[in-house]
Order: sequence, then C-alpha cells, then structure tokens
Amino acid sequence: MSFDAFTPAHLIAAQIRDGAVSCETVVTGFLDRIARVNPQVNAFTDVTAERALAQARRIDAALAAGKALGPLAGVPFAAKNLFDIAGLPTRAGSKINRERAPAPRDAVLIERLSAAGAVLVGGLNMGEYAYDFTGENAHDGACRNPHDLARMAGGSSSGSGSATAAGLAPLSLGSDTNGSIRVPSSLCGVFGLKPTYGRLPRTRSFPFCDSLDHLGPFARDVTDLAMAYDAMQAGDAHDRACAQRAVEPALPTLMQGVSGLRIAVAGGYFATDGMPEADAAVKAVAEALGATRNLALEGAGIARAAAFLITNAESAAFHLDRLRARADDFDPETRDRFLAGAMQPAAWYIQAQAARRWFHDETMRVFADVDLIIAPATPCPAPDIGQKTLSLRGETVPLRPNLGLFTQPISCIGLPVAAVPVFGAGLPIGVQVIAAPWREDLCLRAAYALQLAGVCAAKAPEKLV
Amino acid sequence: MSFDAFTPAHLIAAQIRDGAVSCETVVTGFLDRIARVNPQVNAFTDVTAERALAQARRIDAALAAGKALGPLAGVPFAAKNLFDIAGLPTRAGSKINRERAPAPRDAVLIERLSAAGAVLVGGLNMGEYAYDFTGENAHDGACRNPHDLARMAGGSSSGSGSATAAGLAPLSLGSDTNGSIRVPSSLCGVFGLKPTYGRLPRTRSFPFCDSLDHLGPFARDVTDLAMAYDAMQAGDAHDRACAQRAVEPALPTLMQGVSGLRIAVAGGYFATDGMPEADAAVKAVAEALGATRNLALEGAGIARAAAFLITNAESAAFHLDRLRARADDFDPETRDRFLAGAMQPAAWYIQAQAARRWFHDETMRVFADVDLIIAPATPCPAPDIGQKTLSLRGETVPLRPNLGLFTQPISCIGLPVAAVPVFGAGLPIGVQVIAAPWREDLCLRAAYALQLAGVCAAKAPEKLV
Repeated sequence: MSFDAFTPAHLIAAQIRDGAVSCETVVTGFLDRIARVNPQVNAFTDVTAERALAQARRIDAALAAGKALGPLAGVPFAAKNLFDIAGLPTRAGSKINRERAPAPRDAVLIERLSAAGAVLVGGLNMGEYAYDFTGENAHDGACRNPHDLARMAGGSSSGSGSATAAGLAPLSLGSDTNGSIRVPSSLCGVFGLKPTYGRLPRTRSFPFCDSLDHLGPFARDVTDLAMAYDAMQAGDAHDRACAQRAVEPALPTLMQGVSGLRIAVAGGYFATDGMPEADAAVKAVAEALGATRNLALEGAGIARAAAFLITNAESAAFHLDRLRARADDFDPETRDRFLAGAMQPAAWYIQAQAARRWFHDETMRVFADVDLIIAPATPCPAPDIGQKTLSLRGETVPLRPNLGLFTQPISCIGLPVAAVPVFGAGLPIGVQVIAAPWREDLCLRAAYALQLAGVCAAKAPEKLV
Repeated sequence: MSFDAFTPAHLIAAQIRDGAVSCETVVTGFLDRIARVNPQVNAFTDVTAERALAQARRIDAALAAGKALGPLAGVPFAAKNLFDIAGLPTRAGSKINRERAPAPRDAVLIERLSAAGAVLVGGLNMGEYAYDFTGENAHDGACRNPHDLARMAGGSSSGSGSATAAGLAPLSLGSDTNGSIRVPSSLCGVFGLKPTYGRLPRTRSFPFCDSLDHLGPFARDVTDLAMAYDAMQAGDAHDRACAQRAVEPALPTLMQGVSGLRIAVAGGYFATDGMPEADAAVKAVAEALGATRNLALEGAGIARAAAFLITNAESAAFHLDRLRARADDFDPETRDRFLAGAMQPAAWYIQAQAARRWFHDETMRVFADVDLIIAPATPCPAPDIGQKTLSLRGETVPLRPNLGLFTQPISCIGLPVAAVPVFGAGLPIGVQVIAAPWREDLCLRAAYALQLAGVCAAKAPEKLV
C-alpha cells in the first residue's frame, strides 16, 4: 500500500489494525521521509530508527498472532529532546547536557504513548533549556518552518511544531512553560494542547521552571490530539505537582459540539489591533464557535510580568551551578536571561507569586460565567529566522519575548488551552481556546468543532521537497 | 468569693456557670491584677477594660436569664497585638503600624474565642513585626519574664507568654513563624500549642511570613489549651493557606493517655550536649512518656537554614514599601534583618523552598514509624534582657537567632507542636512534643499525660509583687 505522511494518526492505527498496511511499512515510510525532509526543516536532533523498527515488527507480530493492539498502535511520534529517551543523553537543547550519560529509561509520557502502541521515531530540536520562543538554537541550528523554510518554527518546542507540520510524525510531544507548545503550534499551523498545570506528569523530563512547566501533545488532527492526551493521562507520584486525579477521557466528548457553551472573546490586553492576521484568525474562530461576548481578563499584563519573573528566577536557580561553571557553553541568548535571573531579588519573585495567585482568583471568577475564552496565540505569523524586532501596535519591540505576549498570562495560572491553526494568506497563525482548570475536554470539543467546520486545519506544506 | 488569678480557665468557666462567682467579679479581678502587675512585666500594650466589662455583664445577664453559656464563658484572654482588635490600630509591635486606622473588626480567632464566651482583656507586647525571639522591643520596651524580671520573656509572642505565666489571663493568643509561640512558652514556663500549618485561619491578623505563619494558644493548663484550640478550629475562606478540614476536637481525646504511642527523642541536630537545663527537661519528659527510641531528624540543619531564608525573603518583600519610606522608624534590630532580606537573591529563596519540600518528605517517612518526637524547645532558660550572646556547645554564638535553634526546623514544615514547661532549679524551660501534620490531638494527649504525672506544669511566679 502506498504511504501518505499526512494521514491522521487514528487512521494510520486503523489501517494497521485492519491489515491494510504493516506497521513496519508505516515506520519505514516515516523514517525515509525524515531522512529526506529533515535536512530542510532541522526538526529532529536524534532519529531512533532501530528501536522504532524493532517495535514496528513487534506490533506486526502481535497483530499476526491475533493480539489486541493499543489505540495508537503503529503511530509514529517524536518528542522534544528534553524528554528522556532511553539510551540517549537528554540534551534539552543545550551543549552542556549532551555530555550527560544516556537516559536509563524513557520519560513517563513516552512510556504511556508507547504503551498505547505509538512508536517513537526520535528526539526533536528545541530552544536551549526551553528558554525560547523562536526555535533558534546556537548548538543545533534554527528549526525551520515547513511552510516557509526561511521562517521560524517558533519555540521552544520548535521541532515538535515543525516535525508535526512537515508530516515527519503525526504526533509529537513538547513542553509549555510560557507558550512553548502554543507558539510553535501557531507558527507551524498545527493543533497543540497545553493541559492544566498538574494534569500530565513530567517525570523524567528535563525541567525549565517547575511551577510553570507543562507537557503536552501536538497533532495535525484533533482526534489524534485527544487520543494522545487520553493515553497520557494519570497521576505519577514522582512529579509532586501532578494531581492524583481520575483519568477523564476527552475523546468520547469530542462530538458533543459547542452549542450551549458560553464562549467569550478576550479583549483588553488581548485585543488584536494592528495585528491583521491574528485579528482575522480570532474573528474566524469566534464566529465559528458562536462566541457572543467580549471580556477583558483584567490583570493579564500583571500576570505576564509575574510569569516573566517567576520563570527567570526559578530557571536561574535551577541552572546556577552550570552558570557558574560553564557560562560560555550556554547559547548566548539564553545565558543572558539566566544570568539576569541569578541576580533577581527574592522580593520580586515573592511579589510575582502573589500577583499570580491574585490573577488566578480573578480569572476563576470570570469562569463562573464563561466556559471558553478565545484569544490569539501569537501576535503574528512566523517571523523570519534571525529577525530581532516586531512592529506591535505601532511600536517596534523585541521579537522574542513578544511572541509570548498572549500565551504567558494564561499559563501563568495553569489553565488548559488548545492552540488551533488558521491558515490565512499563506502562513498559518494560531488561536488559543482557553478553559477553566481541568476542562481540557471543552478545549478539545471546541477544537474538534472548528476542524469539522473547516475553520481550523493543518495543511501539508507546499514548499517541502 | 475570693479571686485566684491562677485558677485554670475551665474551672473559672465552671465557677461562673455554677454561680459561684460572677463574670464581672472575675473580669474586674483580672483587670485589677493587670493594673498592678503589668507595670512589672510589660506584657500588655492595650487593656480593653470597657469592652471586657460590658461582655462580662452580658454573660452575667445571660446566665441570670437561664441561657446556655459557651464552654469558655467568662474566661479572660488576651492577644498578641498583631491580632486585629476592633477599635485599636493593629501595631504588630511596630511604631509604623500604630498610626493605622483602628481595626474595624476582631481577628477571626478572637471572634471564635469570644463566641465561646471568652472575654478579651487586651493586646499584648511582641517583638516588632514578629521578627524576634527575645521579647525586646525598641518602641514598647522589653517584655519581662514573670519568673525573673531581669530576664527575657522570649519572643516574638513575648506578652502572650509573660501575661499567661503572670496570671494576667489564663489564656492568650500568639503567633509562631519560627518559634514565636514555643520560645516564650519555654522561657515563661507555660504550655503553648503551635498547630499544623493551615489549621487555624490567620484572617485579620498582621502577617510576618505567609508560608510559615501559624497562630495558636498559650495556657497554664492543658485542658484550657485544648478547649481554646477546639474553640478556634474550622477553616476560613479568607485565609488561602487555611485547610477546609472538619473540626477535630482534641479535648475528648486528652484522657486517652500515651500508652501505645510510639514516642522517640530527637537526637543528632537536637542533641542537648552542653545544655544542662534542656537536657534535664528532655530526659524528664522522655521518661514520663515512656519514649523508647532515639532518632536523628536528618536534614534539620538544612531545614533551619531554609526557614531563615524563607522568613527573611518573604517578610522583606512584604515590608518593602515601609523599608523604602520609613527605615528609620523600624526597631534597629529588625530593620537590619529586613534590609538583608530585601537584598536576598531569588535563587536562594527558591532553593530554600526546595530544601523545605525535601525535609518535609524525609520527615514524613519518619512519621511512618513514630507518633511523637520529643525535642528541646530552647537551648537554655530565659537569658538576661540585653544579653547578646550565648555559650552553645562550647562556642559563643549570637543569642537571638539561636533561641530558635530547635524550633525553626519544625515549623519549617508546619508540624504541630505542644511546648510543655519543665521547672528545674528556679527557671522553667520548655520541651517540644511534635507530631505528624493534623495530629495536634497527640501533642495535647502527651501534654496532658505530662501534666497529670506532675512532670510539666506552670507555676505561679514567686517574684511578682
């Protein structure tokens, strides 16, 4: 059977289960495609061909023996290289970490996707130590946007966005501290889910900022996104922040639609004035979802400032020994941010945590009246690689931090968000669909409705060879 | 009927209930005693005579009308002056705060004791902004130890320890961040309870360090301590840290004794070598409780360091505006500590919080095998007022911080502790009886057993006129 790299994951699994194609054929096809396309996008830093083929053969053998397969059996996926992959050093985008011993065991989320039958095909490029919104990386080179190779993939989960958009894997894993799933989802035009803080365990992944770090999936299809999310749910005692909650499968709820949901568009801080692509995308999503209200998330600017300070201080504290010993081995872009964090006074951090609690309480009151909030994911589509500034609301501002303008206030208080892609004139841009804590199901239901309506969809990149 | 200032609170309540004495007689008696004795001990900063007498008359009228009275009806109590008292500025031991507007409403814990019938007779001296172990105060003068007026009462709840020991009120309220209930309990020879962090709400009290602040009662009698604690239990939505737990009355459990409880003496960091009074007190308590084990609370020194840093950073962040505008109006002793906190790097604070979580987890493992841990409360009995150093294990060390040597590691992780008094040759010294979180009942059962056995008891000071 012929191989289509843009087939949704759940259909690949169905084809394998039905015997229409062997898992080995699928995996070989993806490995071949990675070998051909990855040099253009620079999304993979490691390809785990041997283990992928071995697992594919085990799946084919299990199928032949009449054994039941997991829901994602045979579906290739890849993980940002801050997830432990057994046998590889967990580089987390850094030069320093690639000297580490090979990880003895996969990260918990890789284990859970593997247990559902998904086949790991490699580790993915990322901004150094996840402190990044651009996808540029001094050690591994910039990850490129499959829709325009001269443009950024977005960061820090650059490889996750790029590989998924480029059809190098229908599913991938990334992390999001201030927007690192939502920004590359937006720039690469794929779906991304940042679950509620504490929903998915981070065990055996390399941290960035403990009190803000989330892990989550990328996909080109909402059913795939929900299946991956469902397969990864459950607590884990090794991640103190991970809630011991019952698994709450989202997949069965996707078809419920959005009628009856109270949906609002975020204004105020989130207004898209002077951002034509973001404006058009938010309008399209709002209209398709039947959003009837506009609300100001008061304090979002304060929450973003708090997220900046907390990220800066916690990550610097975590990297302090490395900064002291090997500052020159950091990516110059991240080094300067970490050094600033090392000099931050404790009082700022403590006040930022207080501001965060305040914004959380304010926002919880908003969710008494509203089920979903729509906001832009990024202020612009993918900028050029190397671009340093952005024109934003009439001002020239530094590009890197402002790619997180709209994502930072939301993750600051751990809300679940689906980033959904809208294709305008050529380049995609994402929209955030935001719910109250633990209501990932609502984010995914809305994303599914948007996909059904044809408003949000990934597209096969036209510019890849 | 004659008036005895050293009658336990529960017997005062019984006498009033039985009509043996009127509440007005009791309250007048205590107000007279405060007027006579307080100039010697300097424990009260405010006496609320008018409101106390009005409440006493209401209680007498209610009794005459055959109405049911609360369990503490007619019992005088006083509160550290960081508790809001309606009509008074909440000075929190400072000069700056006494310019504040009068508090519109009592602190929640004062309301709860009042609802149980207890009669507030005043506000109590304390170390400035609670950042103190000595009971000295540049604005209000040192609070004095009733057992030796040249000696410290201990801090920061100096007035609470001193007033209770001096028979100026059978019950008082204080706060404990690093030892501020247990240190004055130890030096003044009374019982004190520092409940589990999050048990009693702090609403309408002036904070010191949010993540370490506890409120709790002092008494000369364990039954009184348990009754006050029981009357104050219950969550409160205005204190985010306060757990919404069911009330778990301790009073009914007091008579259960300690047989069957696994009781250990803390060694290692808590060893009393070179501290003869502390050593004798711990040995007496251990023997009376039938302690069979010795255990090292590994990491206690790290926990103390963490508590220092967290206290310093959080309190400085809280006082930053006051430090900027009015540094000269602080007590010179506390100003220097707050200024140091304002310069603390965020990384230290974050690492301290991580160390705290680590010590918490380690100690929880200890509690799998043990119900109660015995440790000294202070390294020495009350030092002289003005004393600056202490000879500790052969070294001369600064006195003030080392008064908290044994208390800081315990409150760092929020464990409940009863401080129980042992009288040696003249001056008292306290012992900590420490339990796992939410097991205040065990602390109080052990304290009651020690009181029954005659090992721990408050004594009427001999030196007061």
